Amino acid sequence: MSILIKGVLLNDAVTDVYIEKKEIKQIGTDLQVQADQVIDGKRKALIPGMVNAHTHAAMTLFRGFGDDMPLMPWLEQKIWPNEAKLTREDVYWGAKLACLEMIKSGTTTFFDMYHKFEATADAVEEMGLRTLLSGACFDHFKPELAERSKRENERLIAETDKYSERIQYSVGPHAIYTVSGELLQWIHGFAAEHSVPIHLHLAETEGEVQDSVKQFGLTPVRYLHKLGLLSPRLIIAHGLYIDDDEISMLADHGVKVVHNPASNMKLASGIQFKFSEMRKAGVTVALGTDGCSSSNNLDMIEAMKLASLLGKAWRKDPEAVPAGEIFQAATEAGASAIGLKAGRIAEGYLADLCLVDLHIPAFTPNHNFISNLVYAANGSCVDTVICNGKILMQDKKVPGEDEIMEQTARLAYKLVGKA
Amino acid sequence: MSILIKGVLLNDAVTDVYIEKKEIKQIGTDLQVQADQVIDGKRKALIPGMVNAHTHAAMTLFRGFGDDMPLMPWLEQKIWPNEAKLTREDVYWGAKLACLEMIKSGTTTFFDMYHKFEATADAVEEMGLRTLLSGACFDHFKPELAERSKRENERLIAETDKYSERIQYSVGPHAIYTVSGELLQWIHGFAAEHSVPIHLHLAETEGEVQDSVKQFGLTPVRYLHKLGLLSPRLIIAHGLYIDDDEISMLADHGVKVVHNPASNMKLASGIQFKFSEMRKAGVTVALGTDGCSSSNNLDMIEAMKLASLLGKAWRKDPEAVPAGEIFQAATEAGASAIGLKAGRIAEGYLADLCLVDLHIPAFTPNHNFISNLVYAANGSCVDTVICNGKILMQDKKVPGEDEIMEQTARLAYKLVGKA
Ligand SMILES: [Zn+2]
Ligand SMILES: [Zn+2]
Repeated sequence: MSILIKGVLLNDAVTDVYIEKKEIKQIGTDLQVQADQVIDGKRKALIPGMVNAHTHAAMTLFRGFGDDMPLMPWLEQKIWPNEAKLTREDVYWGAKLACLEMIKSGTTTFFDMYHKFEATADAVEEMGLRTLLSGACFDHFKPELAERSKRENERLIAETDKYSERIQYSVGPHAIYTVSGELLQWIHGFAAEHSVPIHLHLAETEGEVQDSVKQFGLTPVRYLHKLGLLSPRLIIAHGLYIDDDEISMLADHGVKVVHNPASNMKLASGIQFKFSEMRKAGVTVALGTDGCSSSNNLDMIEAMKLASLLGKAWRKDPEAVPAGEIFQAATEAGASAIGLKAGRIAEGYLADLCLVDLHIPAFTPNHNFISNLVYAANGSCVDTVICNGKILMQDKKVPGEDEIMEQTARLAYKLVGKA
Repeated sequence: MSILIKGVLLNDAVTDVYIEKKEIKQIGTDLQVQADQVIDGKRKALIPGMVNAHTHAAMTLFRGFGDDMPLMPWLEQKIWPNEAKLTREDVYWGAKLACLEMIKSGTTTFFDMYHKFEATADAVEEMGLRTLLSGACFDHFKPELAERSKRENERLIAETDKYSERIQYSVGPHAIYTVSGELLQWIHGFAAEHSVPIHLHLAETEGEVQDSVKQFGLTPVRYLHKLGLLSPRLIIAHGLYIDDDEISMLADHGVKVVHNPASNMKLASGIQFKFSEMRKAGVTVALGTDGCSSSNNLDMIEAMKLASLLGKAWRKDPEAVPAGEIFQAATEAGASAIGLKAGRIAEGYLADLCLVDLHIPAFTPNHNFISNLVYAANGSCVDTVICNGKILMQDKKVPGEDEIMEQTARLAYKLVGKA
């Protein structure tokens, strides 16, 4: 299988890109190669497929279900009772809808954390994206639940071999207030033994920090440091409440951080994400949307604009979080966080990429493509998506999209008792 | 000319809507009327056309031209030298592109402030939207420039009669730091005499407040109050730096305020817009995008999300700026600010409305339509736009859109010396 993209805009120049199997094989003008498929790049620009580095895919089922509510009543009345009822079929279709939405807005890889691993894995397998899928892990400080989580993750990591290379396993301890220190340390050892990442919510709210200090005598990052959890395998989502010394700890241990501006704003978790300090310290900072119940979409182009505008706003500095840096966070940083040779358009890199339609107002005029992408466009500018060398979307259409939307809506209404 | 929209979702029920000439004539199930045009509302929802209550349309020409820069170097190096070169043709095409972008994202009325009134008026006339178009007004505290502005506005208000009712005139004093108190008072009298609105930037930055206190001995709103400028005709854009007593002054005098979250964040002007205090005091609060050089698009659906998320974030309150309230700001509030019987879908109201495509991930599932519109969707969900009883867009296509994008891009590149 090979694809030739003819005459596409790439970094301000028009070029051809030749893809063979799953890789970008050759980039140059007027390539004289034969390909199974030829894509006309006229009036289109090429960007790497984006990496949504923190989400809960199947929560598309709860999109718009209980907004504008305080956190605890929302969780207690709207989310938890319905999550308890979720079937494998629900999660499968919820994840399929998430995959559809991500493909349509230019995401080719996502880091997920949710229940029913296999249901999401099946959905991703069929939809053609990549995922870092975490086995849920929590014990609510009860030893018997810890044992159950351990056995479950041992089962899931073996299970992952059944799937294609597009599906990577990670351990997914939910948070330090739902997972005991003992289980966290087991996870650390397990992840080291199997060389897999750990995906964890951390330092998301002021309340979490206060509770951490109260319960463990330390702020969240310092607590993890004491437990020995800080390592290059650790990926933390949010990281809003982190001081300068903690940034150094994260940098020293190669910990990755995922910024989720939509969720942080909508849930009023906080605004002061230290993007530039983390980058300057050498921390890999990726970007995520979080789940659809808090974000409420999976549009990484919107997430880039939100991150940049929020960064400028809280710092009172129009030069903060420039377009090029947040684009790097949304692509290369996410890929490198899990050692994926993707997130860049270069020979030898994985063929995970998108063609962006330039013939829309957002790119007119096109004085600066990255500026227009981040500040003027949204996910709807994505025309064609290729992942692992396969075309997932062309001319803004994904095969099977009608059925996915219909099935998921039907199950979502049934779930909340509206059907 | 009549239009029948069959079986469309309106406030959670499926209904028909019959439009005759420029008005919504009848709303009900299974209307037995003959119409010149019938629109199938299946899988679509009806919303009022949105009102972008503060922009500078022709600045589409500068989209993405000098982002991530501090304010003064950006204005001095990028914007002002190029604005000085603008021809009437430039402004005409820049405004056409703005109209195209607004139609495509569901806006039917916009309040504009820019140079070359007639060029924008011609563009709007052809594109079919409504506008409150302001005659630029500034004197930089020089009496001869004040006289010139007065004569120019006397000419423009007469000129406006040549145009259709869709084009309304307003006086557009730029700001209190570019327009003298004497000219502001003349404007107040002139606007009262002709019963037209005044459109003014006010209390946008901390620097403006400090300068106002230094130069006039008063904060911006108090300074206007002393000048006698506060009245129901006054529409102020931004209003970020306004204390509780000033909110009362605005409410007492019926002044309208336009919130511009994208611009305020991107230029790092400030975050603390007092949406709920103003509404509680009875101030009409509308929503705007500001011009494309700061926002960088004209998408009012995105503006709603930004306003709501920013409001929740800076107040640390997930219940702040709920979806329904910001939707009201983006529609009814803007229309009522200029006495337009629009911004609501009701019999006897102007037929300014949009059909939203529900068959996309953002509306799947559709537990709550307004939530999905504000938090999950963006301007690309708009399928059909009707203004003043005429169809401006159907199936996401606006007649002539290719030419508009091509011409405007050509002129924009020429303007900045790239052609
Ligand atoms: Zn999360
Ligand atoms: Zn403005």
